[in-house]
Amino acid sequence: MSNTPLKIGIAGLGTVGIGVIKILSEQSSIISARCGREVNVVAISAQDHTKERGFDLSNYVWHSDPLAMATNENIDVVVEVIGGSSGVAKDFIEIAIKNQKHVVTANKALIAGAGLDLARSAELAGKTIGIEAAVAGGIPIVKAIREGLSGIGIHQLFGILNGTCNYILSEMRETGRDFDEVLREAQDLGYAEADPTFDIDGIDTAHKLAILSSIAFGCEINFESVHVEGIRHISPLDIQFAKDLGYRIKLLGMAKKTKIGIQQRVHPCMVPISTPIAHVEGVYNAVVTEGSFVGQTMYEGRGAGEGPTATAIVADIIDIALARNTNLFLLPTDKLEKMHVAPMSSYRGSYYARFMVIDKTGVFATIANALNDNGVSMESVLQRGRSESEAVPVVLTTHETDEASLIRALEAIERSKVVVEPPRFIKIESF
Amino acid sequence: MSNTPLKIGIAGLGTVGIGVIKILSEQSSIISARCGREVNVVAISAQDHTKERGFDLSNYVWHSDPLAMATNENIDVVVEVIGGSSGVAKDFIEIAIKNQKHVVTANKALIAGAGLDLARSAELAGKTIGIEAAVAGGIPIVKAIREGLSGIGIHQLFGILNGTCNYILSEMRETGRDFDEVLREAQDLGYAEADPTFDIDGIDTAHKLAILSSIAFGCEINFESVHVEGIRHISPLDIQFAKDLGYRIKLLGMAKKTKIGIQQRVHPCMVPISTPIAHVEGVYNAVVTEGSFVGQTMYEGRGAGEGPTATAIVADIIDIALARNTNLFLLPTDKLEKMHVAPMSSYRGSYYARFMVIDKTGVFATIANALNDNGVSMESVLQRGRSESEAVPVVLTTHETDEASLIRALEAIERSKVVVEPPRFIKIESF
Repeated sequence: MSNTPLKIGIAGLGTVGIGVIKILSEQSSIISARCGREVNVVAISAQDHTKERGFDLSNYVWHSDPLAMATNENIDVVVEVIGGSSGVAKDFIEIAIKNQKHVVTANKALIAGAGLDLARSAELAGKTIGIEAAVAGGIPIVKAIREGLSGIGIHQLFGILNGTCNYILSEMRETGRDFDEVLREAQDLGYAEADPTFDIDGIDTAHKLAILSSIAFGCEINFESVHVEGIRHISPLDIQFAKDLGYRIKLLGMAKKTKIGIQQRVHPCMVPISTPIAHVEGVYNAVVTEGSFVGQTMYEGRGAGEGPTATAIVADIIDIALARNTNLFLLPTDKLEKMHVAPMSSYRGSYYARFMVIDKTGVFATIANALNDNGVSMESVLQRGRSESEAVPVVLTTHETDEASLIRALEAIERSKVVVEPPRFIKIESF
Repeated sequence: MSNTPLKIGIAGLGTVGIGVIKILSEQSSIISARCGREVNVVAISAQDHTKERGFDLSNYVWHSDPLAMATNENIDVVVEVIGGSSGVAKDFIEIAIKNQKHVVTANKALIAGAGLDLARSAELAGKTIGIEAAVAGGIPIVKAIREGLSGIGIHQLFGILNGTCNYILSEMRETGRDFDEVLREAQDLGYAEADPTFDIDGIDTAHKLAILSSIAFGCEINFESVHVEGIRHISPLDIQFAKDLGYRIKLLGMAKKTKIGIQQRVHPCMVPISTPIAHVEGVYNAVVTEGSFVGQTMYEGRGAGEGPTATAIVADIIDIALARNTNLFLLPTDKLEKMHVAPMSSYRGSYYARFMVIDKTGVFATIANALNDNGVSMESVLQRGRSESEAVPVVLTTHETDEASLIRALEAIERSKVVVEPPRFIKIESF
């Protein structure tokens, strides 16, 4: 094993970049004992050199241009925590690989889009791209799936992959407040971005799901085929009904091998309160895998934030220091299969639907007939409260159906004017 | 990377050994794609060559003596699933290492006792000893701690590490039946051994805990210093009271860095129903780690059985095929610190105690005085039922105390004759 120090350059000095510097320095003795060599940050790059960051910048070579760092011959590994799925982050990684550097990145958007190309470049250069930090930072889930379970033939995985959404849904349930109010609070607390679109519309979850399913199934990453719905339309009323029916509402990312291909979907789900994932609350993430020889395993921890993300980056750096080079995905890129995509139209499941109705004779018959006409079978129905003047909610759950049939039924019900607003529906998962 | 096949010899053809053969054959295409080389079982060893095992033995070199396999020059990696903490399993591993073979073993008793010596021998020979299967087979917990979290300074870990005990305690709670009856049923179902001592007396949990704490803290394994209590004395009455008080009883293994050293203990605990670990039921295992930068992470899955254990063995074989050689513990043996042991007498915690009393005036005063005289502060007290003729249970919980004081108080209460049997007590964990 080489005894020369491993030299690190960090591009991006937000909380995560600074967290990496902190861990490498505070834990330096155990890390060097573990690696058989020192691991030293030698260069840093950020936009503003003058900003106060709580430590002495003068110990490091400063690159105001990260692309200059990518060609610095005195660096073995670059850490990319700039962010963004294109532009400078992508250029930085490409140039670093061409200049014979290993890369460690937390950039799930970039990997979800350009991961396959980057993996090919890294293979050609004989370098590693570490992505543990890109998914559920506090849990070594990439390592667990790629190395711990890689022999077993995983056929399904699902998880809570976005702490912001899970925090919002947990808070809504606990306080009964509505989405907008809880989102604003999450923004004030720093749990949600000023522009929360990527989180609350499910896109961030979809990025991470695409990465995990490629690693679990050994096929080329295919972010475009992920079916994505977010949580904007979840109301306190639905959360309350979920509780009454024995469920909790969670935004899940789910990937499954089916007979016709791989199904990847991100949407709010009602999950039975008896399942472990229903109890993963607040900013926590969790991933459940299901494989032939091992059954279900579950991994839970903090998904984001300085400490967890920086921890994952350091784990990747240690693997590189130990020359434990690895494929970005499960297999070398030429061994990855093209993903056969199971279209969402092939999905069948149970559903929850809610109607705001004027409580008069014939309402139930109208609803029941519309479902029946479209081949949707009702499992249970529940009415909360009665009023002759105001609309009251009626909710029902269905047996397994395809979504197109359900939507046709709901449209028929909407046209019939027994409801005062468009029906809402949420998928029910049983696992 | 070498393209020659990796040649495996398996010593021990119980369900796990056969499971390894099955996974390596059923998943051979993904495994060879992942490793860049074939992984082939070439030799097997067991006591009885004639026994029907459901596959054709003639494809493999048969060694009736495993020690002969350990010197077979045509083998790169031996898998030890013979079992036992001394005798042939130990000789087999030692000889295999001397003969330049990597070793993969599921033998926690052996590693808990002789792990440090074996690690030294393996280092000298430049070989790896893979032990993922020794702890919580279905969860890649050794890899998660040693590689995923190794940078962060873990200060505590705890877990349910024995599926037999967890099954028994879960069944007792669900059915109200007593320990002996549920144990017999577990034996009939194959969840408990004919001689269940290692499991139910906590020794198996202690073996696994000793391994995990050495890997988490980077110190020499020290099985002898683990404080061990089993679950034989847990009664349905205690399980019911635990429920009434908001707890579940679990056999936990816990390791913690304290100011005066490392505390390792295995005993039944009352854990709050609100904690995730309280909900790990049946034969499932779970491990929770707590580290400086990442907070709590939790890993849950099946702990034992053919599939999970064989999966872990295959994961270790894949790492070896990829030349991802690793230390047995966190660090090379010369870098491991001697363990500073925090003696159990330094432990302070809350307790549950149960007394079977004849319900007459002065009983509470006797109990309260004895506690008070020994400096033990009561937190709550609960009496179930009243009877003038039969003994009734009185239970109490204490504030934090040391165990020696509590035991002195309980002895004083026993001597005072207000109780009809020795008081029982169980530690309460809050995490």
